[in-house]
Amino acid sequence: MFAKRTDLALEARELWQESAEKTTRLPGVKATKSKEEGYSVTRVDILDRRGEEALGKPQGTYLTIDLSSFWQRKADFFERAVRAVGGQLKAMVPGEGPALVVGLGNAAMTPDAVGPLAADSVLVTRHLIAASPKHFAGFRPVAVFRAGVLGTTGVESAESVRGLVEQVKPSLVIAIDALAARRVGRMCATVQLSDTGIVPGSGVGNHRAALNRETLGVPVFAVGVPTVVDAATLAADLLEEAGVAELDETRLRHGKAPLTVTTRDVDQQVRELSKVVGYSVNWALQDLEIEEINALLA
Amino acid sequence: MFAKRTDLALEARELWQESAEKTTRLPGVKATKSKEEGYSVTRVDILDRRGEEALGKPQGTYLTIDLSSFWQRKADFFERAVRAVGGQLKAMVPGEGPALVVGLGNAAMTPDAVGPLAADSVLVTRHLIAASPKHFAGFRPVAVFRAGVLGTTGVESAESVRGLVEQVKPSLVIAIDALAARRVGRMCATVQLSDTGIVPGSGVGNHRAALNRETLGVPVFAVGVPTVVDAATLAADLLEEAGVAELDETRLRHGKAPLTVTTRDVDQQVRELSKVVGYSVNWALQDLEIEEINALLA
Amino acid sequence: MFAKRTDLALEARELWQESAEKTTRLPGVKATKSKEEGYSVTRVDILDRRGEEALGKPQGTYLTIDLSSFWQRKADFFERAVRAVGGQLKAMVPGEGPALVVGLGNAAMTPDAVGPLAADSVLVTRHLIAASPKHFAGFRPVAVFRAGVLGTTGVESAESVRGLVEQVKPSLVIAIDALAARRVGRMCATVQLSDTGIVPGSGVGNHRAALNRETLGVPVFAVGVPTVVDAATLAADLLEEAGVAELDETRLRHGKAPLTVTTRDVDQQVRELSKVVGYSVNWALQDLEIEEINALLA
Amino acid sequence: MFAKRTDLALEARELWQESAEKTTRLPGVKATKSKEEGYSVTRVDILDRRGEEALGKPQGTYLTIDLSSFWQRKADFFERAVRAVGGQLKAMVPGEGPALVVGLGNAAMTPDAVGPLAADSVLVTRHLIAASPKHFAGFRPVAVFRAGVLGTTGVESAESVRGLVEQVKPSLVIAIDALAARRVGRMCATVQLSDTGIVPGSGVGNHRAALNRETLGVPVFAVGVPTVVDAATLAADLLEEAGVAELDETRLRHGKAPLTVTTRDVDQQVRELSKVVGYSVNWALQDLEIEEINALLA
Repeated sequence: MFAKRTDLALEARELWQESAEKTTRLPGVKATKSKEEGYSVTRVDILDRRGEEALGKPQGTYLTIDLSSFWQRKADFFERAVRAVGGQLKAMVPGEGPALVVGLGNAAMTPDAVGPLAADSVLVTRHLIAASPKHFAGFRPVAVFRAGVLGTTGVESAESVRGLVEQVKPSLVIAIDALAARRVGRMCATVQLSDTGIVPGSGVGNHRAALNRETLGVPVFAVGVPTVVDAATLAADLLEEAGVAELDETRLRHGKAPLTVTTRDVDQQVRELSKVVGYSVNWALQDLEIEEINALLA
Repeated sequence: MFAKRTDLALEARELWQESAEKTTRLPGVKATKSKEEGYSVTRVDILDRRGEEALGKPQGTYLTIDLSSFWQRKADFFERAVRAVGGQLKAMVPGEGPALVVGLGNAAMTPDAVGPLAADSVLVTRHLIAASPKHFAGFRPVAVFRAGVLGTTGVESAESVRGLVEQVKPSLVIAIDALAARRVGRMCATVQLSDTGIVPGSGVGNHRAALNRETLGVPVFAVGVPTVVDAATLAADLLEEAGVAELDETRLRHGKAPLTVTTRDVDQQVRELSKVVGYSVNWALQDLEIEEINALLA
Repeated sequence: MFAKRTDLALEARELWQESAEKTTRLPGVKATKSKEEGYSVTRVDILDRRGEEALGKPQGTYLTIDLSSFWQRKADFFERAVRAVGGQLKAMVPGEGPALVVGLGNAAMTPDAVGPLAADSVLVTRHLIAASPKHFAGFRPVAVFRAGVLGTTGVESAESVRGLVEQVKPSLVIAIDALAARRVGRMCATVQLSDTGIVPGSGVGNHRAALNRETLGVPVFAVGVPTVVDAATLAADLLEEAGVAELDETRLRHGKAPLTVTTRDVDQQVRELSKVVGYSVNWALQDLEIEEINALLA
Repeated sequence: MFAKRTDLALEARELWQESAEKTTRLPGVKATKSKEEGYSVTRVDILDRRGEEALGKPQGTYLTIDLSSFWQRKADFFERAVRAVGGQLKAMVPGEGPALVVGLGNAAMTPDAVGPLAADSVLVTRHLIAASPKHFAGFRPVAVFRAGVLGTTGVESAESVRGLVEQVKPSLVIAIDALAARRVGRMCATVQLSDTGIVPGSGVGNHRAALNRETLGVPVFAVGVPTVVDAATLAADLLEEAGVAELDETRLRHGKAPLTVTTRDVDQQVRELSKVVGYSVNWALQDLEIEEINALLA
């Protein structure tokens, strides 16, 4: 069977539901919806082994914030997005202790640059607090690591982050990465938060060692923005909708480097959403208003 | 009927031939094949009005050099590619007079960055010759213009290039741009040369004013590298091959920003092919060996 | 005599006053001081030929806004700086007609990057107004040109801007450039506005053709930020203060590429001041609040 | 007494010799000269505690390769520079075992970007050898780390490198950094190699924790290129030469951020020398000809 690719738990659940024989309730998975600051939030809880197997993702909580309406640029869209995403992240992460924020992905390639770009909007405070603890007493210590890509470092992100965790000894890691969605409409239009860690590059068939509590020894929270759709997955969806039953995976995958679908606006959209993510991390970790974050990042 | 998009005359011809009713010879179009430095070259001449209408492109000569084997990195692949592309371009452009090389496209977005990246490998000599005519007597005057994109300039490339042409008074313009191919296999694997000028952004449905002899007053040669495939065109091809007769263009086009298909390696590939293009322009315009170009660009 | 270098009319006047024999009033020059938004503003008017000769600058008005206190980051420092600089610029430029904003200098070299960086914060509206005149009726048409540097274009900025002026037909040009100051304390701490046009690269002994009403045919306003001090000028000042009478210009100039003095923070400071300049241009040209500019540049 | 700043052992020795009272031989220091590939090499050995105190640098070997003639671009200047620098480095480092190459400094600020720029020319092989040991049997495992700057990471380079060393377990570390020279003529014209490790930012009065065998547990070799001169040091030299005896350090240092002197060509020069450094590291670590390095870095 053709394996459709997605990094979103929300879409993994949709795929499970679409499969003809599964008309029954999905066991071990719970989904709920809510609204935050005008944006829809879907929560998928994978509760046990059955849920893990059905959705192909580890047990834990996955929140998808739908930011499609962000691009209509209605009043306070940026601030509302930060409060929506940052508020959900704040509720997820431990309230105290130093944090290490990891930007995953390739800064030189826009659809993969969410991690490094978001990292540029994260307030770096660890060294300031170390230098003048009194002056910066109101801040939580935050260090930032841009992991780079294997081809230019020779080191898996999981390795380099583990080394850094042993030095910095954070209470938690927040890992930011670009994801792959199944649906074009979710590309550059959603943010997924999870408390399960992350496997860098998973959505595009380029698996790397996981960053999670097992590999790093501290809780790892993932913030992801889908910026591409796997071209073969999109093609398979189109063919199915057109009534084609037999899908030739080898042909669809072209037998070489995975093809991805993206939009001409990806540059601008990735830049803006990365800023939303960076600010949301600040919102979750620091006790600051958005205007204060603006001033500190000037 | 669904309009499949391509910037390659070669593919426009293939599309014409595929249409069921056209089993006869294509009138007003001539195609020939040859081999240069181990790379295949297809020449399509559009000879008259009938050819223009059939292929949707202006009368003139279009050469497509197939660089697929470039990525096998066999002996001297870079030098051979420069000699193949540069040799064809040299045969096409006037042998004398100052040249203006225009890099079209968005430097901040890899698949659109062929123009500005190639411009960085073009030897800029006009100011040197003006300053010390004797010292640089062996060089042809070349100026370079990076046109930028409308959203960040407010000025159409055709306008700004026209203004510059009036100041610099070149004998010819060479315009370099990223293109859209129909076939994934031609993406980042071919270079198209033509003596017809260029309509920036044409392959991705984002038409701008043309750069050609009519608008600029001097002959305009185009060098293009396909870096994306229009997602709807790819989908339409897949559906047709799967036997689906009715294509819903509105659905395939998603009614919004055009989706494009690209590969994960696009960053590296665009960088390398842009260097081939820049060197080929030097090969065509200056009387220099590749090692000399290397030294001058150091 | 050793020629101390500065691009600031304010400092040219100080240099004149320091020369021992000139205890009398400087003829043909008028200087006045004021305060705008908490920042000091010095206005130097060069009134006639005598003033031109004494200060080595063309007749016209030069305003220097002292932003040293910007770096103390007191309340609303950014907004106040934009209102101070933008307000003075607004009073200087014609109130109507399309504008062309030119960013001069080398984007790849921080101390020279004020022009291209400020250009990135200028609202580009010309193409929007052309596309939907009704929708954008409230905006003034603005086009932006990043002129690049001679070594990578082969074309003098004055030439390429003249070509563009003939196409775009603006009512005025605003040229933004990095300057050289004489005093270290004014480096990255002042903005100079003038209605006299500009000679790119003048402060660093790298003269280019002027951009002014004579060469472009429309009024040219210059916005400059000093980001370097000529090392020989600084050395000469130090030696004089230490009582050394004889200055060996050849030795101080090292007989080769001019040496410039800059600070380790130049990167951050240039980035911030370039944003002040870009916003000030918007403030002067458009009828917008700073928050609206923020939203439009998002 | 005014402390003149330099990162070059060669210049520390000159400073010691200039001090009036030290007409005797410098104890604990040995200096020798040679010629490699047409470039002069000065070797300073600090042999014991007396030498350490006299020169203010740790015991060990310091080689300065004078590349001034590089800029005359005579035949094979690049290849000869790589063989000169790389050959000396090869003789210094252990002949076997995996290496970690660390690029120190700020990629966004040209005079500080030698480390990250050189890192881009280092062949990264560790992951390739791990993936296909047989295929890459001829290569030595090399990983690369771009340490970033404290303000954007919150982590001292010494900490993050220590973490990585524990993961990667290299036999040696090569740390590349920009340096400060005392003499303008050595700026962008020399390379210093040492087997003593490095204190990032030392030459510009911005001391950080050292990277050396004590802090990292493995031998640390430093490759440095002076790209700036401390402005106060240059001023002090000028004043002394002019016969001024009393130097007011407070005035010369301006009581704030250190001022540095650089040249307008720094961008181009730093780029080229960083490439020399990167290639020299490859020359020292791998068994490859320069043409092979070229092909592998394409």
